[in-house]
Amino acid sequence: MEFYIVGCGPGDKELLTIKAFKIIKDAKTILYDNLVSKEVLSLANSSCLKVYVGKKPYQNSITQEKINDLIKFYALSRGNVVRLKGGDPYIFGRGFEELEFARENGIKATYIPGISSMQTCGLNDIPLTYRGISEGFWVITGTRRDGSLSTDLYLAVQSKATIVIYMGMSKLAEISQIYSQAGKGSIQACIIENGSLPNQRKAFCKVEDLNITALTEGLGNPAIIVIGGVVELATDSKILDKLLTNHGLNAIY
Amino acid sequence: MEFYIVGCGPGDKELLTIKAFKIIKDAKTILYDNLVSKEVLSLANSSCLKVYVGKKPYQNSITQEKINDLIKFYALSRGNVVRLKGGDPYIFGRGFEELEFARENGIKATYIPGISSMQTCGLNDIPLTYRGISEGFWVITGTRRDGSLSTDLYLAVQSKATIVIYMGMSKLAEISQIYSQAGKGSIQACIIENGSLPNQRKAFCKVEDLNITALTEGLGNPAIIVIGGVVELATDSKILDKLLTNHGLNAIY
Repeated sequence: MEFYIVGCGPGDKELLTIKAFKIIKDAKTILYDNLVSKEVLSLANSSCLKVYVGKKPYQNSITQEKINDLIKFYALSRGNVVRLKGGDPYIFGRGFEELEFARENGIKATYIPGISSMQTCGLNDIPLTYRGISEGFWVITGTRRDGSLSTDLYLAVQSKATIVIYMGMSKLAEISQIYSQAGKGSIQACIIENGSLPNQRKAFCKVEDLNITALTEGLGNPAIIVIGGVVELATDSKILDKLLTNHGLNAIY
Repeated sequence: MEFYIVGCGPGDKELLTIKAFKIIKDAKTILYDNLVSKEVLSLANSSCLKVYVGKKPYQNSITQEKINDLIKFYALSRGNVVRLKGGDPYIFGRGFEELEFARENGIKATYIPGISSMQTCGLNDIPLTYRGISEGFWVITGTRRDGSLSTDLYLAVQSKATIVIYMGMSKLAEISQIYSQAGKGSIQACIIENGSLPNQRKAFCKVEDLNITALTEGLGNPAIIVIGGVVELATDSKILDKLLTNHGLNAIY
């Protein structure tokens, strides 16, 4: 009787770890939610039972208690339950709660880490750290248990860290305000929607313009917001890409 | 002529992404450093040229300029260069500098993210976030360009985030002092050495006791330090594991 809480990464199936890939291949039962891509699900064996337990952001849907019941039910009846989560299950995924539940019920439980959405910044030429620009990065939730934005953002704005906000798309005006009040409204930001997937979209703007940019570009969930000097590197390297493409600098060698 | 900057994760080869695995298999030239495990290197084809370009922490060794020269040399002479880095290349890895260098030299360059050391916390039952305990996590360098600890730690100590410090093993006394001065010396911490590898070692302590704990347990690099309420969950679940093992709670079902 085994339970695996598995990080599926941001969506591209090649960003799965080998360990996750093997566990999905061998799964007897899969419990999955919205952020797990069809591509990843399609890796499972045809005899695998796939159960959708999606919770949409800002909506009431299936409860955590019901998901726990299903973990127990399928572990008992089918012997193996693989819980798939987008990104990494221990980064705002409530994955550890599910692992604790499984163990409390005598089910052997294992965590498999996954590439987290913050790393899709890198896929868009925004490194999370860069010497002389950022001394670290701070990943913050835009939606606490009571629905509010984490007050940690008031500290974050004073820091030298790159800031990445998850589940913050309904708090853009508030985020901008915190930066503007600290006199830092002109720091560069980027919204990345569906990072790593073929339908990925993104927009660059000053942090004070987050809300208008999301509206103009029609950006929505699932998305992350990244704020800091490192965002400017993406703009620079985009110019470089253009140079390479338009002016044939590749031909130098 | 292609350059790949590839994250190899914390060491366990099964924590490589499928994308990284394929690129290593097809590599004509590999440049690697200390934090890339032998297990990962052994995946490369026998015809692949493997070049060690290790930089040991706190020591003068091969320069970044020399590494850049090698990237260019091998890209020109062998057509394909795969730069392997432990963890994720854009998390304190200077990976973006190498990508920029490659592009500036007309070499097509691609980033492949990797599982970062912070995620070995989860492998040790320390989730980076947990509802009601942590509203995010902040990853900070213990060693800035000038060798000093990031002053961001003074802000971090005031936050509700889980704090993870990379390259901080020579700054343990200083880290403890910052927490103690803020009246938070009794927060739980954990040092994880060689996370995910068979030779992994770890120790739990109060943040005020980091230095004495590392000395007593003989813990050194490569290691991360994790600080925050989530560390207590590991102690709890360890007790649970023991209960399961010693008292046969598994037998309930």
